[in-house]
Amino acid sequence: MAYEFRHRMRVAFADTDMAGIVHFSRFFYYMEVTEHAFLRSVGLSVHLETEGRVVSWPRGHVECTYKAPLRFEDEFDVHLLVREMKRSSITYDFRFLLDGENLVSEGSATTICAAVDRATGRMSAIAIPQPFLECVEVAPADVLST
Amino acid sequence: MAYEFRHRMRVAFADTDMAGIVHFSRFFYYMEVTEHAFLRSVGLSVHLETEGRVVSWPRGHVECTYKAPLRFEDEFDVHLLVREMKRSSITYDFRFLLDGENLVSEGSATTICAAVDRATGRMSAIAIPQPFLECVEVAPADVLST
Amino acid sequence: MAYEFRHRMRVAFADTDMAGIVHFSRFFYYMEVTEHAFLRSVGLSVHLETEGRVVSWPRGHVECTYKAPLRFEDEFDVHLLVREMKRSSITYDFRFLLDGENLVSEGSATTICAAVDRATGRMSAIAIPQPFLECVEVAPADVLST
Amino acid sequence: MAYEFRHRMRVAFADTDMAGIVHFSRFFYYMEVTEHAFLRSVGLSVHLETEGRVVSWPRGHVECTYKAPLRFEDEFDVHLLVREMKRSSITYDFRFLLDGENLVSEGSATTICAAVDRATGRMSAIAIPQPFLECVEVAPADVLST
Repeated sequence: MAYEFRHRMRVAFADTDMAGIVHFSRFFYYMEVTEHAFLRSVGLSVHLETEGRVVSWPRGHVECTYKAPLRFEDEFDVHLLVREMKRSSITYDFRFLLDGENLVSEGSATTICAAVDRATGRMSAIAIPQPFLECVEVAPADVLST
Repeated sequence: MAYEFRHRMRVAFADTDMAGIVHFSRFFYYMEVTEHAFLRSVGLSVHLETEGRVVSWPRGHVECTYKAPLRFEDEFDVHLLVREMKRSSITYDFRFLLDGENLVSEGSATTICAAVDRATGRMSAIAIPQPFLECVEVAPADVLST
Repeated sequence: MAYEFRHRMRVAFADTDMAGIVHFSRFFYYMEVTEHAFLRSVGLSVHLETEGRVVSWPRGHVECTYKAPLRFEDEFDVHLLVREMKRSSITYDFRFLLDGENLVSEGSATTICAAVDRATGRMSAIAIPQPFLECVEVAPADVLST
Repeated sequence: MAYEFRHRMRVAFADTDMAGIVHFSRFFYYMEVTEHAFLRSVGLSVHLETEGRVVSWPRGHVECTYKAPLRFEDEFDVHLLVREMKRSSITYDFRFLLDGENLVSEGSATTICAAVDRATGRMSAIAIPQPFLECVEVAPADVLST
């Protein structure tokens, strides 16, 4: 059971914009890459076929607060915590850290567990599949409040 | 003085992901394109040189709540409202509408008015320049609460 | 029957990089948007279901030569010409023009007509479907050599 | 002196499109990330200030030929070779390999060494700075022809 993950990344040139900093929308890309690396680290994939259905995780809500910019070639850590699990959704918290400790930004993402109908592409919320429940848990309150 | 704007866009193929829908991070791209189209519509540019300084608008906070997916070639409207103006920041609300009325998602962005030092690339918050104050105003309460 | 198309676009802030110009990879995004607008203009979609199969158009080869940069808020035209059609592929030429006539860059894309197996996601080249053959043709030699 | 580099990467979810494969334009992102990792590996940065000027490397020409798709979570290697060096440009070859040996695609990029005028943003081609000439060399003919 895991509730925490750290992923080290580096800013790519194409992640920057003409203001000379990482474009704000790229932080969501970084969050998603970290979420998927977390899932892989516990043996899961975000793209799962279970009981004959394709499971996908569309976003219900995302947000990010920016405190300082990231720049080209910066190496940074994304610190993921599992904040909440409901029947059909998981909420992750993310903290972006430079030099291991300076908080650059923080965000969160609530993802909905959904079954995708192959023929129509329609999505409907389902209970989080067992493999996830066996590997992922909510972080303790004292860890979340740090 | 303006507080509202509608921008029609179309989903590009590259905006989609393997789930067959627009990737959630692209909604922030659409919001930003709409914000800049709004500013152009009142004669402003987000990239302004004023009183010998380059003014930039880094994000302080952004968020988005997703209610339904957008798909390839969907035409949609982004409806922008100016929610709040402070000394150094503007908060915009965005609503994504399909077929003119179906709410697909809604989000907001708080942008910080900042002067950029050309030599160092450092940014520092400044008062919103006069040209913005003359063209942009907060939407009336009844419009915001619709 | 059509072999030519012009599409007007505007540079978005997120298309730029820290060098202050449009990132070179975005030109391929612009080319694809133009190709799809061309297909729509003759009543086609790049995402077609025909004879019970999903038809897709993966790229076989793309290239771009850059002569001058595009910058934030530049309005430009992408001029598409159909250069060649084979049994299973179409090659498009693209010219990027500022102010209607200044050549900024030029590129090409060869797309392969492929049937996608829904279950496996495998793609295999197929003959271009009849609806395309009825609407799209190769540009005359004198137009291509301009 | 170095003329070769291998960079291992993994396909992110946001790199895919609705066809279920990596969008063709993302290969240029992967090439650029590999080029910059190569330069870092020999102690250089693509963003250099030398003799009081900012040096940038805009693209002169890029291309890519696609032989097989990359899919979500694929781990792949990008193999970079320095094909040619002229007074003001470097041409890199790139090969994308799955499982160490299966060629997925191959491409090239010719980058122009340019000085950027801070005030105007104008770029002009300059001779490749000494630090590059001391660290980067053209690959031997037999390596390039492999």
